[in-house]
Amino acid sequence: MHTLVPSDRVEHVAVYGRDGHKLGTIERLMLEKASGTVAYAVIKTGGLLGSHHHYPVPWSGLKYDPARQAFEAALTLGDLQAGPCELDDDTFDWGDRSKSYPHPNYWSV
Amino acid sequence: MHTLVPSDRVEHVAVYGRDGHKLGTIERLMLEKASGTVAYAVIKTGGLLGSHHHYPVPWSGLKYDPARQAFEAALTLGDLQAGPCELDDDTFDWGDRSKSYPHPNYWSV
Repeated sequence: MHTLVPSDRVEHVAVYGRDGHKLGTIERLMLEKASGTVAYAVIKTGGLLGSHHHYPVPWSGLKYDPARQAFEAALTLGDLQAGPCELDDDTFDWGDRSKSYPHPNYWSV
Repeated sequence: MHTLVPSDRVEHVAVYGRDGHKLGTIERLMLEKASGTVAYAVIKTGGLLGSHHHYPVPWSGLKYDPARQAFEAALTLGDLQAGPCELDDDTFDWGDRSKSYPHPNYWSV
């Protein structure tokens, strides 16, 4: 029984929705600086046409499936699309690591 | 004021000791699966002769210094060496990601 997981074993791992469809991969975890708690994970979707969607999901909504070596999320792509989203564009530069994700309080509601 | 930090902005960042000496870099964060809380960070030391030391440090003992773009730890290399440590050797394979860090409860005491 392992109660701990390394952060670099979470990042870049595939995430499947409740309906079995692949949502994307975990891009990064957003941590509360003060408490060291994961506020949310950011899921990056496929982006076949060159553009990716980035969605926040709560840590508690992700469950690891050892058989698939992937996470299962308690939601679907439709659920994700109904929430906050960022695109690869100029309004939010994911390459600029001086910025935090723009929905800091989304999951603390 | 950013209250959040991305996990991939923490990993591989340099850590300096209380005495100003560089301790190493943050190798990864160990997360409590159930709560999504950082149990501790793992600091990897220099390893000039090819062997690295890996030390757990509590999240609360790390403070980010924007001027140096590095973390400051509230301890010294001597403090680290007095605690649990892993080497790059056969007794603990850091490349085997199916294993957790062997000191899961160290920082919860």
